[in-house]
Amino acid sequence: MAKPKKTPRPRAETPKGFRDYFGAEVTQRTEMLRAIAGVYHHYGFEALESSAVETVEALGKFLPDVDRPNEGVFAWQEFEENDRGDWMALRYDLTAPLARVYAQHRNDLPTPYRRFAMGPVWRNEKPGPGRYRQFYQCDADTVGTASMAADAEICAMLSDTLETVGIPRGDYLVRVNNRKVLNGVLEAMGLGDDQGARDNVLRTIDKFDKVGEQGVRELLTKGRLDASGAFIDGVGLSDDQAAPVLAFLTSKAADAAGTIANLRAAIGSSDIGAKGVAELEQIGELLAAGGYGSDRIEIDPSVVRGLGYYTGPVYEAELTFDILDEKGRKRQFGSVSGGGRYDDLVKRFTGQEVPATGVSIGVDRLLAALREKGRIAAQPKGPVVVTVMDRDRMADYQAMVSELRNAGIRAEVYLGNPKNFGNQLKYADKRNSPVAVIEGGDEKANGIIQIKDLILGAQIAQSATLEEWKERPSQFEVPRDQLVAKVREILEGQG
Amino acid sequence: MAKPKKTPRPRAETPKGFRDYFGAEVTQRTEMLRAIAGVYHHYGFEALESSAVETVEALGKFLPDVDRPNEGVFAWQEFEENDRGDWMALRYDLTAPLARVYAQHRNDLPTPYRRFAMGPVWRNEKPGPGRYRQFYQCDADTVGTASMAADAEICAMLSDTLETVGIPRGDYLVRVNNRKVLNGVLEAMGLGDDQGARDNVLRTIDKFDKVGEQGVRELLTKGRLDASGAFIDGVGLSDDQAAPVLAFLTSKAADAAGTIANLRAAIGSSDIGAKGVAELEQIGELLAAGGYGSDRIEIDPSVVRGLGYYTGPVYEAELTFDILDEKGRKRQFGSVSGGGRYDDLVKRFTGQEVPATGVSIGVDRLLAALREKGRIAAQPKGPVVVTVMDRDRMADYQAMVSELRNAGIRAEVYLGNPKNFGNQLKYADKRNSPVAVIEGGDEKANGIIQIKDLILGAQIAQSATLEEWKERPSQFEVPRDQLVAKVREILEGQG
Repeated sequence: MAKPKKTPRPRAETPKGFRDYFGAEVTQRTEMLRAIAGVYHHYGFEALESSAVETVEALGKFLPDVDRPNEGVFAWQEFEENDRGDWMALRYDLTAPLARVYAQHRNDLPTPYRRFAMGPVWRNEKPGPGRYRQFYQCDADTVGTASMAADAEICAMLSDTLETVGIPRGDYLVRVNNRKVLNGVLEAMGLGDDQGARDNVLRTIDKFDKVGEQGVRELLTKGRLDASGAFIDGVGLSDDQAAPVLAFLTSKAADAAGTIANLRAAIGSSDIGAKGVAELEQIGELLAAGGYGSDRIEIDPSVVRGLGYYTGPVYEAELTFDILDEKGRKRQFGSVSGGGRYDDLVKRFTGQEVPATGVSIGVDRLLAALREKGRIAAQPKGPVVVTVMDRDRMADYQAMVSELRNAGIRAEVYLGNPKNFGNQLKYADKRNSPVAVIEGGDEKANGIIQIKDLILGAQIAQSATLEEWKERPSQFEVPRDQLVAKVREILEGQG
Repeated sequence: MAKPKKTPRPRAETPKGFRDYFGAEVTQRTEMLRAIAGVYHHYGFEALESSAVETVEALGKFLPDVDRPNEGVFAWQEFEENDRGDWMALRYDLTAPLARVYAQHRNDLPTPYRRFAMGPVWRNEKPGPGRYRQFYQCDADTVGTASMAADAEICAMLSDTLETVGIPRGDYLVRVNNRKVLNGVLEAMGLGDDQGARDNVLRTIDKFDKVGEQGVRELLTKGRLDASGAFIDGVGLSDDQAAPVLAFLTSKAADAAGTIANLRAAIGSSDIGAKGVAELEQIGELLAAGGYGSDRIEIDPSVVRGLGYYTGPVYEAELTFDILDEKGRKRQFGSVSGGGRYDDLVKRFTGQEVPATGVSIGVDRLLAALREKGRIAAQPKGPVVVTVMDRDRMADYQAMVSELRNAGIRAEVYLGNPKNFGNQLKYADKRNSPVAVIEGGDEKANGIIQIKDLILGAQIAQSATLEEWKERPSQFEVPRDQLVAKVREILEGQG
């Protein structure tokens, strides 16, 4: 293949905002996705892998979430013969493709259609620290049913999923709320038709997590001095008008029945509010029938996330244990998953309203939580390394590696230039190898091999001189035919 | 979110040349990739997931394989502030990103670097039947070593992988050849420097699979009448000149030693040829030391695929069992994997030559082979469906589903409109459900449930009238508390 000779060398870099994932980062995510897929499948959900590329027409010009920019996709125009063709784009989430797939295949798919999807999505946004333009999503949705049993099921599934991936009961909570209840509250406030005032109230409610009850009260009424001393204008409601919102946000009681009673009071005589409360009640009953108590799932009106986007039940999973933040302060790990009910999933395509409800799990956050808690290894053990003392006897080393592999032990032979033995040990160190196997000419002649416990060796090396180290029993001389037995013994000893 | 009212409805279609994958198609591929990753990892290979998007600069303007068009990528230009930025593109394979990753991270990566990668790649090519613009690749490569032990290892790993995913020994063969041997043959023919003649000979050799020994002889010399009666011009060599090529292609003997001897004869006094033969010999020895005999891996000079692209050893895995083609004729299933050694992987970036060797498995072909042989189900069983006879008792049905799920049985409750019970059975049919559970008001009052064996029911329905069917014991009335036990019994009976 002829190449131009004088082209300057290309930069070996990912595009801005993209990154690569190595080794355990990949393997651990794959294992987590597999565990999650197992639970979803057990619940009757079917896998869907839609194409990463969609027509811009099918994707829609607008991203569904108000938080996202209008033009946030990577798009290009197709060339067809001598003509320009369709605009295509990388999917920005897994919900827009679900809408397209359901509209396209609705005659072949079962209704209701339970599906899960996991894979990368792409956002054409300004990259920032920890903010990537390609990341994983992991969704489960039930399409084509208005039944609260679908929402309850997803909450139960979310609870099972968290326990399956290694978050024990007590370390998480699935919290459920309902957008209709909030609408009822707005009606009770006399804001049913005033879109501007409603939006202002919604924006204020979204700050409940940060500023608390008193902060929301101030923001809804006369305004508030924030921590930096700046004054934030209030919405201008009277204390009486603000009362239902505050009653709603703080209506969580000791048990579900108490919460429901408080909510019913907050919505006054609003029909839509009553419908929302009834939906929450129904979800509560279904979950109780499935054995899911408030130690796993609870009704919590302070769940505000996503209330603007969803149309009925909303749910969120929070990890409740403390971690230390970058400044060493304790804080709750927080949300790892959220979802809810949304209408007209496919209406854009078919004109028909198709209700749906679904959840998205933040896989990378969940992985971070498990690493934080030490439940998955930050740097797992590498393979056993068979070193090469004599390059003409590669077949001997190959035979050892095969023996180890056949015995179920992850192993490899050193494939670099064997001249410098120190490089081989440096290689084993870089690989995080637990054990190195050595067979020089003398050992071969005597039918023995040397086996080094590299983890113990590293521990000793930290607290001893090289001379001492040589005397320590982190290296063992054993007959060649005890290769597998001795390596296994050391690996088991390392735990 | 306000939307323009009069926009025509978008078409619900994948872009041309793209498709979606549903249910078992996804799950089975995921399971296969997991099994393959398990073998690769066991061999000391580390996972790498590079970003799907690369700069066009890093990707290179030219695709590495001569079979591919020069402009085969999906690319777009980045906008930066008010200016045009870099061109970006979707990766078209997993090797070009490996080159970029290795060049970018070479100081942090171990050398040699064994890595595997699996994921979609994209080709901007004209779509055709069965020819998609997004498909999976599954690669393993060892970077930074010229040792034949790396090539031998990949051949052994390929053999282990095929057996692990369900192709038994005897149903496949890994065949190894060497590009240098062919170069030696060309030297022996006196074509060492004549690039045009060499290319003609290479193209002819590529047809060996189709036209056989006599066909290649004719094509190398005076030309050939093909099956349709058309005359194909020959390369114009004399019979003597053509002899070494034919000796090379047909040099496979009863054992490796015989093949090696034949190859040595075919290359005459060529140095490069002798080097290639020595490499093959070395690979043979290493594989023998690892216990891999010719029932799994053999030296076969008729492996011509990829000879043009690779620079040393080439290898290919073939499934050797017969399948029926679309015309009902028996033919071998053929190749499912191929690879070999290639030079200057990262030279474009760093100026340094870094040798590498690697293999790619055609996952979708391998899945097709396993389905063909009945080793994985074409349409796996769906979940148990708990039907809804009384919509007010959803909690009862939910409790049943939870019991089944907690007992490890995949199950779901019908979430659609329960009014028409026939629709529920149609739904169960579409889901390929093995069992349906029914509890109407009478059953509830009597503490019993009905459990339907849907697979037996379908079998009976095919050979009986509806009246008869009703009498058959494909439906069982059992006490409510025997739900799990009876469902499990039926599932086990279905196998």
